[in-house]
Amino acid sequence: MNRVETGVAGRAQPLAGEPLARACVVGASGFAGALAAAILWSHPRVSLEAVTARTEAGRRLDDLYPRHRVPLVLETFEPQRLAAAADVALVSYPHGAAAEVVAELRGLDMRVVDLSADFRLADPALHERWYGPRGAPQLAREAVFGLTELHRQEVAGAGLVANPGCYSTAAILALAPLAREGLIADAVVDAKSGVSGAGRAATDRTHFVSVDENVSAYAVEGHRHAPEVDQELAALGFAGRVTFVPHLLPLDQGLLASCYVTPTRELGGAEVAALFADFYAGEPFIEPAAEPPGVRDVRDTNLCRIHATTAPDGRVLVFAAIDNLWKGAAGQAVQNLNVMLDADEAEGLR
Amino acid sequence: MNRVETGVAGRAQPLAGEPLARACVVGASGFAGALAAAILWSHPRVSLEAVTARTEAGRRLDDLYPRHRVPLVLETFEPQRLAAAADVALVSYPHGAAAEVVAELRGLDMRVVDLSADFRLADPALHERWYGPRGAPQLAREAVFGLTELHRQEVAGAGLVANPGCYSTAAILALAPLAREGLIADAVVDAKSGVSGAGRAATDRTHFVSVDENVSAYAVEGHRHAPEVDQELAALGFAGRVTFVPHLLPLDQGLLASCYVTPTRELGGAEVAALFADFYAGEPFIEPAAEPPGVRDVRDTNLCRIHATTAPDGRVLVFAAIDNLWKGAAGQAVQNLNVMLDADEAEGLR
Amino acid sequence: MNRVETGVAGRAQPLAGEPLARACVVGASGFAGALAAAILWSHPRVSLEAVTARTEAGRRLDDLYPRHRVPLVLETFEPQRLAAAADVALVSYPHGAAAEVVAELRGLDMRVVDLSADFRLADPALHERWYGPRGAPQLAREAVFGLTELHRQEVAGAGLVANPGCYSTAAILALAPLAREGLIADAVVDAKSGVSGAGRAATDRTHFVSVDENVSAYAVEGHRHAPEVDQELAALGFAGRVTFVPHLLPLDQGLLASCYVTPTRELGGAEVAALFADFYAGEPFIEPAAEPPGVRDVRDTNLCRIHATTAPDGRVLVFAAIDNLWKGAAGQAVQNLNVMLDADEAEGLR
Amino acid sequence: MNRVETGVAGRAQPLAGEPLARACVVGASGFAGALAAAILWSHPRVSLEAVTARTEAGRRLDDLYPRHRVPLVLETFEPQRLAAAADVALVSYPHGAAAEVVAELRGLDMRVVDLSADFRLADPALHERWYGPRGAPQLAREAVFGLTELHRQEVAGAGLVANPGCYSTAAILALAPLAREGLIADAVVDAKSGVSGAGRAATDRTHFVSVDENVSAYAVEGHRHAPEVDQELAALGFAGRVTFVPHLLPLDQGLLASCYVTPTRELGGAEVAALFADFYAGEPFIEPAAEPPGVRDVRDTNLCRIHATTAPDGRVLVFAAIDNLWKGAAGQAVQNLNVMLDADEAEGLR
Repeated sequence: MNRVETGVAGRAQPLAGEPLARACVVGASGFAGALAAAILWSHPRVSLEAVTARTEAGRRLDDLYPRHRVPLVLETFEPQRLAAAADVALVSYPHGAAAEVVAELRGLDMRVVDLSADFRLADPALHERWYGPRGAPQLAREAVFGLTELHRQEVAGAGLVANPGCYSTAAILALAPLAREGLIADAVVDAKSGVSGAGRAATDRTHFVSVDENVSAYAVEGHRHAPEVDQELAALGFAGRVTFVPHLLPLDQGLLASCYVTPTRELGGAEVAALFADFYAGEPFIEPAAEPPGVRDVRDTNLCRIHATTAPDGRVLVFAAIDNLWKGAAGQAVQNLNVMLDADEAEGLR
Repeated sequence: MNRVETGVAGRAQPLAGEPLARACVVGASGFAGALAAAILWSHPRVSLEAVTARTEAGRRLDDLYPRHRVPLVLETFEPQRLAAAADVALVSYPHGAAAEVVAELRGLDMRVVDLSADFRLADPALHERWYGPRGAPQLAREAVFGLTELHRQEVAGAGLVANPGCYSTAAILALAPLAREGLIADAVVDAKSGVSGAGRAATDRTHFVSVDENVSAYAVEGHRHAPEVDQELAALGFAGRVTFVPHLLPLDQGLLASCYVTPTRELGGAEVAALFADFYAGEPFIEPAAEPPGVRDVRDTNLCRIHATTAPDGRVLVFAAIDNLWKGAAGQAVQNLNVMLDADEAEGLR
Repeated sequence: MNRVETGVAGRAQPLAGEPLARACVVGASGFAGALAAAILWSHPRVSLEAVTARTEAGRRLDDLYPRHRVPLVLETFEPQRLAAAADVALVSYPHGAAAEVVAELRGLDMRVVDLSADFRLADPALHERWYGPRGAPQLAREAVFGLTELHRQEVAGAGLVANPGCYSTAAILALAPLAREGLIADAVVDAKSGVSGAGRAATDRTHFVSVDENVSAYAVEGHRHAPEVDQELAALGFAGRVTFVPHLLPLDQGLLASCYVTPTRELGGAEVAALFADFYAGEPFIEPAAEPPGVRDVRDTNLCRIHATTAPDGRVLVFAAIDNLWKGAAGQAVQNLNVMLDADEAEGLR
Repeated sequence: MNRVETGVAGRAQPLAGEPLARACVVGASGFAGALAAAILWSHPRVSLEAVTARTEAGRRLDDLYPRHRVPLVLETFEPQRLAAAADVALVSYPHGAAAEVVAELRGLDMRVVDLSADFRLADPALHERWYGPRGAPQLAREAVFGLTELHRQEVAGAGLVANPGCYSTAAILALAPLAREGLIADAVVDAKSGVSGAGRAATDRTHFVSVDENVSAYAVEGHRHAPEVDQELAALGFAGRVTFVPHLLPLDQGLLASCYVTPTRELGGAEVAALFADFYAGEPFIEPAAEPPGVRDVRDTNLCRIHATTAPDGRVLVFAAIDNLWKGAAGQAVQNLNVMLDADEAEGLR
């Protein structure tokens, strides 16, 4: 049988010429970090040089996630070593734990995409309210919010990209076209996520018997992704109310944001559809859907499929479906990395 | 082994004395009809005398649904025979097909609970818009909308009860307390249903591979249960807009209505909770939930668990969870039957 | 709304006369213990007087398991108090932890059904090999192996019943008729279980993302339920090899044992079917199935559905489906209790 | 947004130089055919020129399967047109319907991989017994059974490859190393498949509510894939009994073959493992697994993960996990195509 040997020699695809960058994934034992490693492992323009983990160091990544087939051994976090081996880092640590390692890597001049929430919220007070005191606060100013479709130019030149949350990604993509045009009077986002969004930790909430044949809302008093949505919509000119409620569903990967917008003026369905088509013209990962999209249609892709229309009662309805681990985390992180490296934005993500 | 013999002799529970009524289920091969038969089969005060089916006549019901253990043979529909054997009928035919058999049974003086939509909408024009011309229109006037908690008294004396739709049951129960107090300015209902709600027919939409690892909205241009909600809320004094969008989930039984209400005045969370507690005081099947309820918590029960609160942004949130086949169909049908027979409302439903 | 008050006053069904026994459930916070409490709560001939838990004491059982609707508060384990309140106890503690509390309760003259493995294996050496030293070894002799269909008479008079494992229940029921007739030369049991069989503890193995869209074998070097199967088949006269391999499936409740028997002589399919029909004649919970049974057909029932036949190649095939929490645990415990109390064996289990 | 235009211009990956072949997929609307098209659409050495379908002609393939992102329009089957546009064809028609179109394409000198069963069984009598009279019987002689690992050389030169069934692929890969060494005295294969293996047709059996929370055996009187297993094991020298029973599981993609082998002589676990490692040395898609493999670990890959060991009772256990749509159908079809084209066998399948 063919157990690929450890190390870069065994990579899935030959690189297409000299790599644009050497990369590492810090925190590759969780769902998002492991996927980021897998995507980079077969990326034609980036070489994956190292993967680290806090608790699983010493294990091979393909023992933890056989289907990803990344035959690297998880290392402990040694910033000097990483800086010697790689130019860029994708950091996938829990909120609160990421800031410190990001600071160390930035101090060694590595460019970083941070998948945690540690640098997503620009307003320090807002960050503190939702997450407590921010680590490495000096970095907050340089961080760019990595919703690629909205911040492509800043991402291109960034040293530190704060990759958005999964819920925020879907909600912002669903509401941005309306927000920019001043068309939102009021909005409700009923979001539905698969269980991988809750992470790899085994808890009562992620127990199979809790989730199976079940659906329920949670965090109705306020979810941490909501201020990301508010921040981005405010930047587009909308400062009103967005009620956001997440739900947990019996599936592993997939996230649907069902958005109910009271428009500031009457909007026909065709006008809404045209507005979205125009806003996202040329975007490689935003796909219009003739019907309300299912998350199965974007599974294991970096796509966001959007159906925007007007209900007979005048409410504007927008449904945005993503894979929470791809466009909602690791996929978008690589998309941002591609932009940072001036590569084709879809490299490694097709 | 112990294959129970066909016929009433084999019933699960001995009756507690003389039955209050002899019952039949017309259309017992579908999910809701079969469950209605199963509930009646072990009902302590009602004897189930016959079950019929349009396409499976001649088969034993416990061959079709082994776990229900109802050892009766499905018969063809012969109204005279049924009228001789039974006093009351639960009719579980598809929309459009029910009206005629209901008319025949009513003509033979049987009391009927109709699980179809044929007599739910009082307004003939509204019915025609959503379902086409109504069969047996002369019966529409006598039909009582069987949302038990709202129409208990009319149900008690009714000859014909129109059992509500599954979505409408959850949505109306979630909004009624606010509607009666004039507290709704605007509302969104994002509803989520398991696949049994789509019925027993094998279609692309009910194929396992379509539903598994998926979630999507459907009928965004308008769902047939929405006018039931409007009708009932109007009767309580609310005539405004309720945007209703259903979603299909990868689970078999269970329905969650997530309701987002813009209130007419500021409402605290405690006030909302108290309002609901008061409205549903003493109701045997309405249960307050300290947290947003999951559908797993009501599986195979006639319960509706409701969590009502106010979000920090002032939106009133109401989450109502039912089992779509129980409180959303067969369970509520038996609940109505109990009321019609002046029995304990929870008989056979514990 | 109608939150049932704590205590026996709120029980689901009125008792049918004077109870045959007052019962308690020790360890009611796990899946099996909670179900045992729920079954007893609506048992017409037994009154449930107390429930205890090691880690959730002080919580209401209907907060933990809303759909079971048992409004009792979980107490700490105080044997004297239990002995004053109840005559019989169902103990649902983890293996190893049960023996001690069983001994205390037996010392207070309570009759006990123990759902753990602590007294299932009669041979002390065998017990020690699989579980380590046995607690309260003096009780092993009086313990009766509670596979009801095989040991009804001993159960009737027992002070201590060792309720069988879920896998063993299905496998023994599938093989016993052949074993007794000396018809097994060799056997393979490929068993498939839902996740509730792995218990309520949140582990990597019970994480939704581990189980969903997955199936795999485990414990291939030997599973603890295998010696129970060997012990019971030996008692029926078969001392040969039964290879037993369990698999974990993406469902919550249900267990299928697929058994492949090399017979000692040629056996026609009709002969096999007749043998099983004869062996289980009159059994209230053993049901012949004309086709290989699905676990869905026994969900939330105490049934074991069995299809036994001969393959064209001469192999005898037996498929036995149970609900692992019912016939595989709590249901059979109540079945045994009914036998101990000389009640109708199916009381409370229909 | 970026709706890729119809046609070859929009392909996912640029070809790596001149393609080795131009391909078409005949019958691309089913699960396996659509996946074959998706794999070829991003294959670096093969250009996909056309896709056809019997019932969905005129629709875009990415409307039917959005996540595959193949922007081609399904055409009706016109062999001359296909022969002009392409050199090779993958045919994914139902059994019985494939033979005729394969004959037409072969008559036009196209090389064909046929995913149906029409040419898998070399023995005409055996084919007739399981499938009825064979269409285009003259082609049976030239057909090569496309279990790549066993028939690589014949596949390389073949004009017509009969791609194996999903069950047979897993079972043969699991048993071949033992069969070749004369180590099998007797074998049981308990196979477990996801629902996509049953095809895209909506039936009672593929209804979500039939499959969800269920597992059952089927075709216990004999399954059509069994003679494929027998044929291939016979070619390796084993002519004894293999009892094969398939089971349907609540998951979409994935197939596990659990094999229980009575060996002809005592075999230690290490010896078994070494035998498999040796047999499959250098195979790019066969991966040894240290633990019994889960189907989740091979999802959306062409891998077969195998764990082979000896139970304490002497039985040899082999567990082989594949994705039924990949290694069990479309993936292996492309693997065979790669061999036929003398390309790297893993091209397009990483």
